[in-house]
Amino acid sequence: MDREIIRTTVGIVGGGPAGLMLSHLLARDGVDSVVLDNRTHDTIATTHRAGILEAGSVRLLTQTGAISRIPTEGYEHAGIYLRFNGENHHIDFKELVGQTVWLYPQNDAFIDLAATRARDGGDVRFGVRDVTVEGIETERPMIDFTDADGTAKRIECEMVVGADGSRSKCRDLVPGRVKHTMTYPFAWFGILAKTPFQADELIYCHGESGFALISQRTPEIQRMYFQCDPSTTADDWTDEQIWDRFDEILAGPDGFRLQRGEIIEKTVLQFRSFVQEPMQHGNLFLAGDAAHTVPPTGAKGLNLAFADVALLAPALVRWARLGDRSELDTYGERAAKRIWKAQNFSYWMTQMLHTHTDANSFTTKRQLGELESVTSSKDSMKYLAECYTGWPYDLFTPETSAPLGAPTAELEEVAR
Amino acid sequence: MDREIIRTTVGIVGGGPAGLMLSHLLARDGVDSVVLDNRTHDTIATTHRAGILEAGSVRLLTQTGAISRIPTEGYEHAGIYLRFNGENHHIDFKELVGQTVWLYPQNDAFIDLAATRARDGGDVRFGVRDVTVEGIETERPMIDFTDADGTAKRIECEMVVGADGSRSKCRDLVPGRVKHTMTYPFAWFGILAKTPFQADELIYCHGESGFALISQRTPEIQRMYFQCDPSTTADDWTDEQIWDRFDEILAGPDGFRLQRGEIIEKTVLQFRSFVQEPMQHGNLFLAGDAAHTVPPTGAKGLNLAFADVALLAPALVRWARLGDRSELDTYGERAAKRIWKAQNFSYWMTQMLHTHTDANSFTTKRQLGELESVTSSKDSMKYLAECYTGWPYDLFTPETSAPLGAPTAELEEVAR
Repeated sequence: MDREIIRTTVGIVGGGPAGLMLSHLLARDGVDSVVLDNRTHDTIATTHRAGILEAGSVRLLTQTGAISRIPTEGYEHAGIYLRFNGENHHIDFKELVGQTVWLYPQNDAFIDLAATRARDGGDVRFGVRDVTVEGIETERPMIDFTDADGTAKRIECEMVVGADGSRSKCRDLVPGRVKHTMTYPFAWFGILAKTPFQADELIYCHGESGFALISQRTPEIQRMYFQCDPSTTADDWTDEQIWDRFDEILAGPDGFRLQRGEIIEKTVLQFRSFVQEPMQHGNLFLAGDAAHTVPPTGAKGLNLAFADVALLAPALVRWARLGDRSELDTYGERAAKRIWKAQNFSYWMTQMLHTHTDANSFTTKRQLGELESVTSSKDSMKYLAECYTGWPYDLFTPETSAPLGAPTAELEEVAR
Repeated sequence: MDREIIRTTVGIVGGGPAGLMLSHLLARDGVDSVVLDNRTHDTIATTHRAGILEAGSVRLLTQTGAISRIPTEGYEHAGIYLRFNGENHHIDFKELVGQTVWLYPQNDAFIDLAATRARDGGDVRFGVRDVTVEGIETERPMIDFTDADGTAKRIECEMVVGADGSRSKCRDLVPGRVKHTMTYPFAWFGILAKTPFQADELIYCHGESGFALISQRTPEIQRMYFQCDPSTTADDWTDEQIWDRFDEILAGPDGFRLQRGEIIEKTVLQFRSFVQEPMQHGNLFLAGDAAHTVPPTGAKGLNLAFADVALLAPALVRWARLGDRSELDTYGERAAKRIWKAQNFSYWMTQMLHTHTDANSFTTKRQLGELESVTSSKDSMKYLAECYTGWPYDLFTPETSAPLGAPTAELEEVAR
């Protein structure tokens, strides 16, 4: 075999936010890694995904020097609106739980993280092909791949991290894996439109004929969605039909209407819930979408990926420095606690806000009873705010974990 | 027609707790009523139903002199236990929301209310037959019936209240009525057993193979349930099988087991959710189970009946004294707010705690994620406590309502 050998400590399959952030955190602690992704930098940079960062994600990204421009380029949101019966009900996160979230698009986060790794001399390779992982049960796993220039290469490493997204191949290497899945009987029709901000915060709207999410992107371009049948394709709706549909769902006595504008992108988002257990085997560890997918209603996908990494990085550093893999061994189990909370929250938000196609009048009335209960109870709104802004990282760190010294100690501080 | 005529202001069909309590409250304000029930006193007195009274129900019953012995004969419960993964999680109502609930069986409440009405000279007739209501759109509705002694009688009244339970005939008199219903894919196998108290408070247990509720009745006799298929009949299970089943559901590392004893009653409880809207038409008003049924999981049935009556009584008094029917006209609408909150709470508790026969591994794990989330969040436990102990009555009284003077003013005070 005539492959160029690259030696590193951690081989990371997947150069999305999870893989890049892990590589960044490891580098800060002197643990070297190589990141591979079969997509090009431009493909990832132009794929529109999530847009909301939890308070903890923002602290992690900012305080570890991964991304500096969230406070200046992002938008801090003190809450969200739940809209039903044509009226907005404000859930004021800041007042309720003293936390906020930030609007900062995932593709911008990706661009920043890639730039940070490039600045720091990280080995990150986009546009590779034929990635295969072997030997995860040995002390010397290998990752074979064809580099962007067409040459066959091999990474010899000690640990492999599968951060290769929702179509992960790494996860299939875990023997005895169980895929917990749930499909939902609806999808989202998403648009990017050239309009000003439609509201100061996100609006989650339960309308009689469906759900809509009025989100944001920049002062010029907005991201908005309405509930559609999963069999819908993007071409099924004309621009006028789309705006009419939003009007219908949002209609209410307060007269709120969207400002229309040019629609520059239409997509249909299928959604499902998925968790693979276990999230690790031998010297392979999964992080982010490779191990779990959530429906977008709770804005948890990207945040869960960062939360995984915030557990995995110190566990890898501990192993690399001290030869102690105790934290690594419990990584998946600890990550799962947050994941199932997030799955439940995403499920709850989805069920509470969408229109169920098989709903009878009881279901519809009960659902409005739930929205009334939630928005008239400070305790329930606090619970929602607590879930939406994210659970503190230290809930999921092991009690036995001893300090590692800077900069990991600093990272552990951030997590508190 | 050779019927003896009985003249009264309010004719009440149904002599369960709702009808008797209404009659009691009206009598305190000098509004006379006649109560009819086609069951005998003994039948109602020996039918085992609910056992938990909300704080507001206890205040209403005690402070209006309806039942005096709750504080001495009942048991105050400061909370409940949610049990899952074989461990108890205490939801401490008193600490969380400063309220408690009381264990006081519905049949005892019935016996007391009937005795109070008898003591006060109330006209309450059990064991009647052939009750028919006519003229609810007129100023002189009539209730024809055959009295317990076999004589045909007629009540001529001004208002009719249908408090005739879950098999209500009165509700069918509301034109254009909508029945909102939901059936659940499981039932409860209930027993009365001669054992001491099995715990200091109720245990709601989510076990791998089903739900169980460890409830109480007296120091000698306990009420307990486990989830069963709706097609089950009481004879399908031997006593030993029943106790084994409880052991299986409750099993956990804490070694908790029920103390076995003689089983003196077995029943299968089918359950469903039901709300009729509207709850009134012309001079007919529905209260309690006649207008709504909840699954028993949230302990809301009897409490909703008292809450209806707490709205309806002052509205009737206001009309009788002042000729002002404004509160009567909005009665159903106001009652519905609490009813849908209660339906949602009952649905939530039911869904969260039962085992779903069609569950895949995602559903099961998500459900445990929910139980973990709820019991690890003080805010979520507060919300649960707030729902379980009951919403304050004044949430549902109209803002325009002017004081009526004692004793209704006193009643309004209780409601605050």
